[in-house]
Amino acid sequence: MDAIRGTAKAELTAPVEAFLADLHARVSKVTGGSPADYIPELGKVDPSLFGIAIATVDGQIYEVGDTDVPFTIQSVSKPFMYGHALQRHGRPTVLKHVGVEPTGEAFNSIVLDEVANRPFNPMVNAGAIAVAEMMPGDTQEQRIGNMLDLFSSLAGRRLGIDEAVFRSELETGHRNRAIAYMMLNTAMIERDPNEVLDLYFRQCSVNVSCCDLAIMAATLANDGTNPLTGKAVFDAQYVRDMLTVMNSCGMYDYAGEWAYEVGMPAKSGVSGCIIAVMPGQIGICVYSPPIDTQGNSVRGIRVCQEISSEFELHAF
Amino acid sequence: MDAIRGTAKAELTAPVEAFLADLHARVSKVTGGSPADYIPELGKVDPSLFGIAIATVDGQIYEVGDTDVPFTIQSVSKPFMYGHALQRHGRPTVLKHVGVEPTGEAFNSIVLDEVANRPFNPMVNAGAIAVAEMMPGDTQEQRIGNMLDLFSSLAGRRLGIDEAVFRSELETGHRNRAIAYMMLNTAMIERDPNEVLDLYFRQCSVNVSCCDLAIMAATLANDGTNPLTGKAVFDAQYVRDMLTVMNSCGMYDYAGEWAYEVGMPAKSGVSGCIIAVMPGQIGICVYSPPIDTQGNSVRGIRVCQEISSEFELHAF
Amino acid sequence: MDAIRGTAKAELTAPVEAFLADLHARVSKVTGGSPADYIPELGKVDPSLFGIAIATVDGQIYEVGDTDVPFTIQSVSKPFMYGHALQRHGRPTVLKHVGVEPTGEAFNSIVLDEVANRPFNPMVNAGAIAVAEMMPGDTQEQRIGNMLDLFSSLAGRRLGIDEAVFRSELETGHRNRAIAYMMLNTAMIERDPNEVLDLYFRQCSVNVSCCDLAIMAATLANDGTNPLTGKAVFDAQYVRDMLTVMNSCGMYDYAGEWAYEVGMPAKSGVSGCIIAVMPGQIGICVYSPPIDTQGNSVRGIRVCQEISSEFELHAF
Amino acid sequence: MDAIRGTAKAELTAPVEAFLADLHARVSKVTGGSPADYIPELGKVDPSLFGIAIATVDGQIYEVGDTDVPFTIQSVSKPFMYGHALQRHGRPTVLKHVGVEPTGEAFNSIVLDEVANRPFNPMVNAGAIAVAEMMPGDTQEQRIGNMLDLFSSLAGRRLGIDEAVFRSELETGHRNRAIAYMMLNTAMIERDPNEVLDLYFRQCSVNVSCCDLAIMAATLANDGTNPLTGKAVFDAQYVRDMLTVMNSCGMYDYAGEWAYEVGMPAKSGVSGCIIAVMPGQIGICVYSPPIDTQGNSVRGIRVCQEISSEFELHAF
Repeated sequence: MDAIRGTAKAELTAPVEAFLADLHARVSKVTGGSPADYIPELGKVDPSLFGIAIATVDGQIYEVGDTDVPFTIQSVSKPFMYGHALQRHGRPTVLKHVGVEPTGEAFNSIVLDEVANRPFNPMVNAGAIAVAEMMPGDTQEQRIGNMLDLFSSLAGRRLGIDEAVFRSELETGHRNRAIAYMMLNTAMIERDPNEVLDLYFRQCSVNVSCCDLAIMAATLANDGTNPLTGKAVFDAQYVRDMLTVMNSCGMYDYAGEWAYEVGMPAKSGVSGCIIAVMPGQIGICVYSPPIDTQGNSVRGIRVCQEISSEFELHAF
Repeated sequence: MDAIRGTAKAELTAPVEAFLADLHARVSKVTGGSPADYIPELGKVDPSLFGIAIATVDGQIYEVGDTDVPFTIQSVSKPFMYGHALQRHGRPTVLKHVGVEPTGEAFNSIVLDEVANRPFNPMVNAGAIAVAEMMPGDTQEQRIGNMLDLFSSLAGRRLGIDEAVFRSELETGHRNRAIAYMMLNTAMIERDPNEVLDLYFRQCSVNVSCCDLAIMAATLANDGTNPLTGKAVFDAQYVRDMLTVMNSCGMYDYAGEWAYEVGMPAKSGVSGCIIAVMPGQIGICVYSPPIDTQGNSVRGIRVCQEISSEFELHAF
Repeated sequence: MDAIRGTAKAELTAPVEAFLADLHARVSKVTGGSPADYIPELGKVDPSLFGIAIATVDGQIYEVGDTDVPFTIQSVSKPFMYGHALQRHGRPTVLKHVGVEPTGEAFNSIVLDEVANRPFNPMVNAGAIAVAEMMPGDTQEQRIGNMLDLFSSLAGRRLGIDEAVFRSELETGHRNRAIAYMMLNTAMIERDPNEVLDLYFRQCSVNVSCCDLAIMAATLANDGTNPLTGKAVFDAQYVRDMLTVMNSCGMYDYAGEWAYEVGMPAKSGVSGCIIAVMPGQIGICVYSPPIDTQGNSVRGIRVCQEISSEFELHAF
Repeated sequence: MDAIRGTAKAELTAPVEAFLADLHARVSKVTGGSPADYIPELGKVDPSLFGIAIATVDGQIYEVGDTDVPFTIQSVSKPFMYGHALQRHGRPTVLKHVGVEPTGEAFNSIVLDEVANRPFNPMVNAGAIAVAEMMPGDTQEQRIGNMLDLFSSLAGRRLGIDEAVFRSELETGHRNRAIAYMMLNTAMIERDPNEVLDLYFRQCSVNVSCCDLAIMAATLANDGTNPLTGKAVFDAQYVRDMLTVMNSCGMYDYAGEWAYEVGMPAKSGVSGCIIAVMPGQIGICVYSPPIDTQGNSVRGIRVCQEISSEFELHAF
């Protein structure tokens, strides 16, 4: 991938796009997994949708397949909300409410760190809910507005919420409600859980495209500055923290094998999207709804393995 | 204790009352523990209150100390609500929603039986909440009425709710709310958790006296028929099930040692009450607010040990 | 069952034996389960063997089927070794090494009570190994002799060890070896684990018959005195402790349901035997090798349910 | 640190050594922690020993303090034994016996991955014991010889075993013995646990100096080739796997915070040593016996934080 940066774009575009087109064609044959259906709305998606997008830190975008189809961002929202909390409140405050340790527990575990009584990390639901409470704003309307501003500045365009998915999450999210009350019980969150969850479910329901997420990932690769708009969203020091927890906790129970096989900081969402970041170079997004039992897009993992191998992007 | 039944009452009353008076005097010197304060209202109690009451299956009552002071029944309500659910719905239906296995988990654990996905037993909070949902009634008002009818028929007098404690529980019971949403998530309960918890918190807030609870315990000793009023509240087969779970799970984490030291089916509540049942013979209640770290009344345990030893009431 | 004691033997024998013969015939049709095969030697047994024996506290024995076939006592040895430790060392010493709390953990769990760092109870393997270490004797030979003396005095005849099963246990008992080293690590045992396990595996390999175990159970029903020989093996106070832990922990993970359905202190072994005790009245043994996934004899449970129901032996 | 490689050595040596000297002086004032004493021999060390060594991929060594004092390598042996197993047996075989997932469990946990029944990763004791079994050799003598050859080739000089520490580990390592028998029970290891543990305790007892470990770390930074001797010890692909598990699991329960604060693949040992690797650039070793409650050298962590910060070595 060093080639991408060291070569004139005209020369480069063709071979990268050819590689992506070939990769897309090959991985299109990969079957297995099925779209998430724990929320009725998510189950209605066309499972054959499949897009790959790569955004470079100098604003170049390479894409193939269904890269403009909207889908909900789901858990890929977590690292960005975490970065925003760090940016607004600083590390010490955020660390009081959520740790940075990987956990063997499932992503939707209700178990908290027994010593510090806080969620293990911001990538599990409990941690993400604690982070959602930190979104500034005097009213719920303001907090929703601030959240949408964040994701819009990351995508470089105005984003909105998929109301049907949001309502579906709201109606069925009993486990998250249990987690929120458990944290209220230990004073890990302090506001009304219903209000905090309202924001959390909305953040998960933000509509994005594969290209949007590639640009968001490239913003992290670019030390926090959106390479398309030039807007500085996060300070570099907080980008490092975001990449660190993505690296250790971004792929649910597959984190260890992902580090072994792919070796890039990443985050996946149950809508079938995965983002991966090669710091200083590129942001990647793959979108393909069928997910495996661990909640990761089946084709998404395959694509990231091949890109990592082809361009030698493994961290070590 | 066989003596109680085999002898004319006139002869008997004196020695039993003398024993109780002496026991009360001796155990009054026992200190340690402190009143529960997780609910602000409970912490306001006079810690020196101390009553002992024994009710026989033929309706005799022996009492000493503060046996008429009202306090909230708390977890001592659990076996009776369980009996009522068995009586109304039968064993198979009730067993679908709550098991009969002891658990090493704490009474307020959110962990469910992984195989059956149901609470381990009706004495842990999760199980008691599942049982509360089974109270019949078309409206919440009717269910509250039916619950109060149950406890009133067990006490042989009209009982009411301590509104201050109820509101206190309602405002602070976040952990129980978490448990309820977790069970809603796994379809172990089906109604709105707020409604189910409203009933559960009310059942815990029923005002009783030490004498009331001795009569309730004696109703179980008497195969389900209130020895004072003659009213049949539970069928004998369900009394057996109630006593069985009280025997294995009634004293929180102290269940094993209780079985070793006292050996009677029992149930304790954080307000500082303990009931114990000698089937076919007597029901006992001790009330003394200071509780130990396991949630059991310190003097209550001592009194039950001494009564068990004196009258050889141990099951084996 | 009161009838047994209150009636002349001549009158009684016929109906009880008729009941047992009928019960044996009916339960012979029950299939399911299979003989334990974790030790190769145990898997070689004839699965159709099926015996039932009842011994009364006045020395009467009722039996039907294969009641004289030898099999290894396995975990049914545990309560007797525990009683012997209590008898020799007293409660306080024994309680330092093994608790009396039921556990949700499996019988072969390596998990110890985190607070006291001791096994939860003497019916799980860890607890039984800790108890085995307490067998008095200056040499291993003496300890083995004392152990055999104990079981022989309980059976009322000289018992020996099944050498093939013993060697099979010794060769395959890696998990128990792991448990023993874990306890050595926390100083819960102090002697060489290999020596302690040698005794433990021998105690599990003692050859008994269904009649032997019924007499052993009747010894507990008879307050510790063998009803056949009149020899006092345990003090009544320790029999009570033995029955208490059998009651709460004797049937592995089935303990809760057993208490619900049968309601007698009991212990089962993987060779397919179950003993149950009706204090003051009878000891029961059923032997049928096929066991269920919880390690309890399938026909054994059925027989005990029917006897408990027929003679109303449930504790409550 | 880029400066180190881009500049003539003469110019560079002075500033790096000045930095290290200053760092050593500052961190010498850091107190806290105490030497490990679970093995009596380890507790006898001089707690004031303190050395820092950095080895570059082109064979330069910078050192300050007690860098030639011998100490036992302890758990820092684990990644190298893992790399050797990968090199000899290939990934698929090794993955059958030990996973690559981080775990919330303690390093000496006896808990195995429930699905695959294997240790979670090669940095916990269970995993390291499984890896030790894979050392080739027809006899135990040959396996010990091969193990010593491995560490000698990594250090670039002949290494030996501290016999007193070895015997001390052998005598007190009951918990590791428990772990080994548990794995024998599930067929995760197949040879006699005593033999496997003999090798494991010897590998932990290899005598090394701070400089030796810096060179070993630099061998990983140099894609598996010892920068001093030029000997290729590991293929680059296996070095990547070694660095990946060091990155996620190398610092016991501190792994998450280490990734946050330092951000380099690392491994610590209870003798008070920590190695860290900056791929393509340097290997670092710090030695200071006092360790914190998580088992990591107190000064070692501080030194690595400062080096990471000063030279911007964080992975992200």
